Amino acid sequence: MVVKVYGPHYASTKRVLVCLAEKGIEFETLPVDLIKGENRNPEFLELQPFGSVPVIQDGDYTLYESRAIIRYYAEKHKSQGTDLLGESIEERGRVEQWLEVEAQNYHPQIYNLTLHILFATALGFAPDEKLIRESEEKLAKVLDIYEERLSRSKYLAGDFFSLADLSHLPFTQYLVGPMKKEFMIRSRKHVSAWWDDISSRPSWKKVSLL
Amino acid sequence: MVVKVYGPHYASTKRVLVCLAEKGIEFETLPVDLIKGENRNPEFLELQPFGSVPVIQDGDYTLYESRAIIRYYAEKHKSQGTDLLGESIEERGRVEQWLEVEAQNYHPQIYNLTLHILFATALGFAPDEKLIRESEEKLAKVLDIYEERLSRSKYLAGDFFSLADLSHLPFTQYLVGPMKKEFMIRSRKHVSAWWDDISSRPSWKKVSLL
Repeated sequence: MVVKVYGPHYASTKRVLVCLAEKGIEFETLPVDLIKGENRNPEFLELQPFGSVPVIQDGDYTLYESRAIIRYYAEKHKSQGTDLLGESIEERGRVEQWLEVEAQNYHPQIYNLTLHILFATALGFAPDEKLIRESEEKLAKVLDIYEERLSRSKYLAGDFFSLADLSHLPFTQYLVGPMKKEFMIRSRKHVSAWWDDISSRPSWKKVSLL
Repeated sequence: MVVKVYGPHYASTKRVLVCLAEKGIEFETLPVDLIKGENRNPEFLELQPFGSVPVIQDGDYTLYESRAIIRYYAEKHKSQGTDLLGESIEERGRVEQWLEVEAQNYHPQIYNLTLHILFATALGFAPDEKLIRESEEKLAKVLDIYEERLSRSKYLAGDFFSLADLSHLPFTQYLVGPMKKEFMIRSRKHVSAWWDDISSRPSWKKVSLL
């Protein structure tokens, strides 16, 4: 069964696509143009009532929220492709902890930067310079904690690549690329080595080009 | 082994405590006073580098982030007490989806309301009335989607109580109690019935009094 993935051009959806690539799961993509408001069409809201991407359809099973989808496939096909959950329940707990850190501490700041630096003009509002400054300061503090963590283990949840690392890929690519804030990664030795490692994975090289 | 839980008086920690109560896991609580800044002490930052509660210690295993901790215990003791993850991988996917909706759509709004209505004065800043108004409007839209969902299933992830419902308890209690915004729940028939159901569980009656 080929998995249908809605909204492939957005960072949250790439979180799902890179997971499917790591697991060797075949997918097809269906574009959704957020700028044109296609996510507010009744047919789309039937799939995803909040009007967000991504959504997947796998036979008659529909699921949304990128971090829920990646957990679903990592568990459903645990022994296929890269194991992204750790070997024990304790390792999975650690994966969950760092997935939550990504969602609660890292993402809100990098999302503000993405929205206000990259997309404000296209979406028709003025970038909030104060919010940009504050978000960058908060993200720097989060990265200081990552630096300490990554001085003690190769990846966030331990010495294995997991959903926790993978979940950082799409928005961090915006940060080091179009946002021109690569210095935030490069000024931290262990974060920099971690970024080189995770962003050079074949799965990400494939998905980041979509 | 009795689980040590730091910061029992805060809503995020109660998410963990109600999960432990549902699973019949014994715990002891260790207070952390955020107003006094005890979460910035070096010993606490050693456990939780972001300075947030909750943290648990279970023998030599330390874990933080409330939604990671509840997943860990729900999986580790799957067949003990209430099953909070669903019976199949597809049901668990649904639980994860609504846990993410809680974390990404519901929580940011109810957290803003909690911070600015209940805690601004104690923390020494002026409540942001514009933010309060906007957060209430956004929360109302989220609750409209919950109302539609709960007209089709008894609980968020399906016809079984799960982590997704449980995760809403502590902050919604603030909303209907000290924030005096019970009308947001009561004006929606299915949300109201769902709230009566989940908030009358013995686990929550016990934990909400702590």
